[in-house]
Amino acid sequence: MSNSVFMSRDEATQLASRLQEDSLIGVSLRKEKEALDAFLRQPRCVPGNGPGGGLEHEQHKANYTQLFNAGKFWLITGDTAYRDRVRDTLLDYARIYTTLPYAVPYSPNPPGRLFHQILNEHMWLVFASAGYSCIRDDIGAAERKAIEDGVFHPMVAMFSETYRHHFDIIHNHGIWAVAAVGMAGIALGHAPYVDMAVYGQCGDSLSGGFLAQLTKLLSPDGYYEEGPYYQRFAIQPIFLFAEALQRHRPELDIYQFRERIVLRALLAPLETCFPDGRLMPLNDANRAMSIRSLGFLVGASFAFMRYGHDERLFWLTEQLGAVWADTAGALLSDAWARRESRSAPPAGGSVEFRCGEHGDKGAFGILRMEEGARGAHIVSLNYGAHGLAEHGHFDGLTLACFNRGQEVLGDYGGVRWLNVEPKSGGCYVAENMSWAKQTIAHNTVTVDQRCQHDADGVRAHSDHGQAVYFGTEDADCQYMSGRVENYDPGVSMQRSVLLYRDAQFEAPLLIDLFWLSSETEHQYDYAFHYDGQWVRSDFPLQASAGAAPVLGPDNGYQHLWVVAKGDFAGESGVFGWLMGDSYYSLTTWAGSGAQAICARLGANDPQFNLRSEPAYIVRRRAARQLFASVLETHGKYDPAIELSRDPRGQVERIELIEDGPQASVLRVVTQRGNLLVFAGRGEVPAGTPVQTVVAGHVYQWSGGAAVQREH
Amino acid sequence: MSNSVFMSRDEATQLASRLQEDSLIGVSLRKEKEALDAFLRQPRCVPGNGPGGGLEHEQHKANYTQLFNAGKFWLITGDTAYRDRVRDTLLDYARIYTTLPYAVPYSPNPPGRLFHQILNEHMWLVFASAGYSCIRDDIGAAERKAIEDGVFHPMVAMFSETYRHHFDIIHNHGIWAVAAVGMAGIALGHAPYVDMAVYGQCGDSLSGGFLAQLTKLLSPDGYYEEGPYYQRFAIQPIFLFAEALQRHRPELDIYQFRERIVLRALLAPLETCFPDGRLMPLNDANRAMSIRSLGFLVGASFAFMRYGHDERLFWLTEQLGAVWADTAGALLSDAWARRESRSAPPAGGSVEFRCGEHGDKGAFGILRMEEGARGAHIVSLNYGAHGLAEHGHFDGLTLACFNRGQEVLGDYGGVRWLNVEPKSGGCYVAENMSWAKQTIAHNTVTVDQRCQHDADGVRAHSDHGQAVYFGTEDADCQYMSGRVENYDPGVSMQRSVLLYRDAQFEAPLLIDLFWLSSETEHQYDYAFHYDGQWVRSDFPLQASAGAAPVLGPDNGYQHLWVVAKGDFAGESGVFGWLMGDSYYSLTTWAGSGAQAICARLGANDPQFNLRSEPAYIVRRRAARQLFASVLETHGKYDPAIELSRDPRGQVERIELIEDGPQASVLRVVTQRGNLLVFAGRGEVPAGTPVQTVVAGHVYQWSGGAAVQREH
Repeated sequence: MSNSVFMSRDEATQLASRLQEDSLIGVSLRKEKEALDAFLRQPRCVPGNGPGGGLEHEQHKANYTQLFNAGKFWLITGDTAYRDRVRDTLLDYARIYTTLPYAVPYSPNPPGRLFHQILNEHMWLVFASAGYSCIRDDIGAAERKAIEDGVFHPMVAMFSETYRHHFDIIHNHGIWAVAAVGMAGIALGHAPYVDMAVYGQCGDSLSGGFLAQLTKLLSPDGYYEEGPYYQRFAIQPIFLFAEALQRHRPELDIYQFRERIVLRALLAPLETCFPDGRLMPLNDANRAMSIRSLGFLVGASFAFMRYGHDERLFWLTEQLGAVWADTAGALLSDAWARRESRSAPPAGGSVEFRCGEHGDKGAFGILRMEEGARGAHIVSLNYGAHGLAEHGHFDGLTLACFNRGQEVLGDYGGVRWLNVEPKSGGCYVAENMSWAKQTIAHNTVTVDQRCQHDADGVRAHSDHGQAVYFGTEDADCQYMSGRVENYDPGVSMQRSVLLYRDAQFEAPLLIDLFWLSSETEHQYDYAFHYDGQWVRSDFPLQASAGAAPVLGPDNGYQHLWVVAKGDFAGESGVFGWLMGDSYYSLTTWAGSGAQAICARLGANDPQFNLRSEPAYIVRRRAARQLFASVLETHGKYDPAIELSRDPRGQVERIELIEDGPQASVLRVVTQRGNLLVFAGRGEVPAGTPVQTVVAGHVYQWSGGAAVQREH
Repeated sequence: MSNSVFMSRDEATQLASRLQEDSLIGVSLRKEKEALDAFLRQPRCVPGNGPGGGLEHEQHKANYTQLFNAGKFWLITGDTAYRDRVRDTLLDYARIYTTLPYAVPYSPNPPGRLFHQILNEHMWLVFASAGYSCIRDDIGAAERKAIEDGVFHPMVAMFSETYRHHFDIIHNHGIWAVAAVGMAGIALGHAPYVDMAVYGQCGDSLSGGFLAQLTKLLSPDGYYEEGPYYQRFAIQPIFLFAEALQRHRPELDIYQFRERIVLRALLAPLETCFPDGRLMPLNDANRAMSIRSLGFLVGASFAFMRYGHDERLFWLTEQLGAVWADTAGALLSDAWARRESRSAPPAGGSVEFRCGEHGDKGAFGILRMEEGARGAHIVSLNYGAHGLAEHGHFDGLTLACFNRGQEVLGDYGGVRWLNVEPKSGGCYVAENMSWAKQTIAHNTVTVDQRCQHDADGVRAHSDHGQAVYFGTEDADCQYMSGRVENYDPGVSMQRSVLLYRDAQFEAPLLIDLFWLSSETEHQYDYAFHYDGQWVRSDFPLQASAGAAPVLGPDNGYQHLWVVAKGDFAGESGVFGWLMGDSYYSLTTWAGSGAQAICARLGANDPQFNLRSEPAYIVRRRAARQLFASVLETHGKYDPAIELSRDPRGQVERIELIEDGPQASVLRVVTQRGNLLVFAGRGEVPAGTPVQTVVAGHVYQWSGGAAVQREH
């Protein structure tokens, strides 16, 4: 049997016949071949190492990509130039690899000999192994030995021995590590490498290895603990290695493992993307990253071949405009050509993703509601797991809101200028810890200017939130609620979020209730990371005169300049802004004596790594505290035609009717009548009647939370 | 003869036959009629007055637009509902107009009874007069008298008597005023109004009136003194009134006046737009405003009918996707349907617009150079007139730069949230004077932290710059130069700007030389208003620790927070940033002891009217000073695919070879050889050989400025 990881000679012959087709597979093959041919017109180049985004880094990346493609096109076309290029390039690597010094590391990830972090060296080995496997039978024994002893074996030894401690970590880097070693094992016909990759160094499938990664990193719903940005990255080695194992270790039946977890790993992130395909930027995310990336391309084709038709795979294919250029992609391309209509996006509804291996570590909830031609309103709430010690943010109960095509209340993402070499070699920078991970950087409540779990990633990872209720039975009034305990010592927090629409409002209202309770008094900072231009407040805001002070000494506060402060005139306050073509008004009930702070990010940032963004914080000292807000989306702004419509919205204030141990009741006062908002504190099944009596008046509703018109 | 201002009964019959056509005229007519019919389904509403962008303001705007359309469609369709709506609405106005109190003014523009500024009331009269003229023959004499005595005559009296001082101002408001009164005169058959509108209140065609406006506001090149944003606005009444006069005072032959200045007023601003159609934001501009606005729609159709075919009118029509829905538009629509190919944009070349009535008040220069698929590089330099006392900025020798689809060095525009009612009623706000007009708000040099002309608009308007040279003979090395004297007392300034391309650089280089000379020492602040994220500098920048101080007490400096400061390590310094998908590196020679300041806008802004934007300032104290910069555009950034290419560029430093009274010679040191930059101080015709000898070495070039490779 050939060691070719992904393609038999028969499959190659089949693909050769598709190369000129005007189909997705034909186009995808030709695009790869054109890039490969252009690359082959350049002389071979195997440099030393350098920083992320630097010339050496980019050369090694291009090399492994084209080693992969050249191997494949050797099988498809039989053109010896492809075979020779793979052989000669690998001989170049073999000659120098063990002589290269380790690169300069820029992150906790250890350095390789080719790249500043071994993560990239894992990727090199994944793709180079696959490419090499296509030519291994077609070169001389001496060349084989030179290549394998010169680069493959030493590289595996580095991953599994030199960096033994890093091989079995449960982390996206760990998936790449096992995929790399496993695929090298398949390419070289060396079973022990494959065994180590599948079962871990201890061979127990628990402490490490592909099976352990698939078990521990993904919840039963397919939610990936590090968040969608890393899920996008992890599904690349997951699918590549799964397919390799299906072909070379079919007895594992890897695609059926853990009730088809590989498939769910692909489908789950489709629910966490915005309508433009960008993925929600949780944890250390790059905010621009979308489903238009390699992992989804690979995943769509392999999933189609191994699991059969699913409408979501067609939607993905439509977004990608391509298929993975091999047998799986050819099958998907053929089915795609026969499809009947344009695919609707998969993420139409609301969904609650359970977190943790057993689905018992809280959840990540997403509510969606449409606003006609202006598109989806999407709200997310994080009451689940931390997102691993390394990339997780200390953002329990953080809220995000997207509507009218823009992120209204956003997550900063990670602080990293990926592949921008002059910005710290493209690596995570100090402000990732000092700002992006801190609680104050998120749309949640910061207690006493500290960070949740005191910014201890290991402690946070061992903890998790709790799901309280999630109700989407009423399409016009959906709700979710979660709780976290002792993320700040001695403080309990619960947050309920509703999306509500009725004919009075042009857009759905976001309603938010955030309860805090403690035995002792604390300073609670309820933060909103919005963007845009201030329009109005119903209380006086005093702009900082002259110099802008910083908000605090540490825990992220040192990065915020105080632009203005003001005291709420009553128990609630309105703060309105303009973003893009839309107006937003946030009305917050906080009780008497609340203070508002307008801040801007960028203080104490010696390398100018942070973006300049505004924040709005409502601060109050209390032991027990409720913050309750309505975010109203309204009006339209188009400066090119001097149009401004409804810059104020309708909500005037919020009144508290009851804040009891079982539930809270609020009155939202608007220009055209009032709304009553009910939100329970405990788990209440949908449809269950609930009532509370306040000053003799009986309030009745059903389920976890509800909104009614007050008559 | 009918008083119908724009349309005879015959023309109306013709247009009626086009209403169902699938042509630009058919679509344009139907779109207007649909909006009109929707409006007529609403009950009539003639409210009192309110702030800009408020409900009353918007209602009066909708009323005058639909008075205009209803009159027109009465003639076209003969549907009496249209006639009656015009009549009844005007009777509503007539009943209340003189009883309404004056509105609350928000600006120096005096208030009307319908609007917060009479400018809008002028617009009301322009459109309402035209609409009324269509029905005047078809209503009863008593109704005629009620309408004319109730609203038209009193309104004209307000414009020409109550606000007599404002009627003849040479200003876009003045054009609206004369168009309004003139069109009312035509509609009412009242010749004295027309005479006053054409010849001014003194009847001399000099101190006021349409002829004086056309003479004094436009340079012989058609450049409008207030800048493109106001030109867009002014061409609306210019064309409407010109066409009305052509029809009702044909003996004036207004379209031929001043060598077809009306046509040139339309074509000139097409040269001042970016490739996406947005107009360069000079002076108090709204930065979003583009050629997709009413004045260009009206102008394209009337210009086509009165001046005949011009390819630029087709380009405009393509951008607008519509024609003005009348006879002129029908002619343009027919020609458009017969055109052979898609129109190329008109603004392909470099152009120097002379300023002032006689073209002798300096100039506004624009250089353009293409960068293949990444589009046009556009650089502008202002060495002309001030832009009138009211809307002009104190920005002599300001530079702007657009490339790769974005404004790289931009102009802030005006500070005004137009029609955003909660933002000061949509009017200009205090920060327009305290920031936007100030010299430091612009890409020029501020002397001693003062404002040019000490921010005295009248003084600035009486002054102007001087054109020195403008050379575009060599398509790969274009240049322009201008001078201003005593904008700051005792200081002479000259600035030469080049666009240069050769195969070494992926994009054209912008080369800038700014000479200052004075008898005494001054502080010179050479400012760049860029946008984006800092990438690198070749000198240490110290971020402000903690609080961010303000840069100065007044003249705009009070609005800038100091984010960082640093001293150039040598005589030149590099400052690089990332904007959108492109990198920019600015290398500046300033001599020894220069200081760099990184600032951010937003300090001392109590109503949060300013946008948060960064600035980079190179400061040096001297009597005689040269600042010389190269702005290199390079690389590519696409975070969605983790791509970062060439974030550093090639220019390493600039060396001064000679700064003499006739010319300066600089060496631009790059990674791949050096460039020599020559820039003369005086007027040198293209092709004229020039030489200078420095330390025995003879440097030779020709023309005003040049770039050579150093061998």
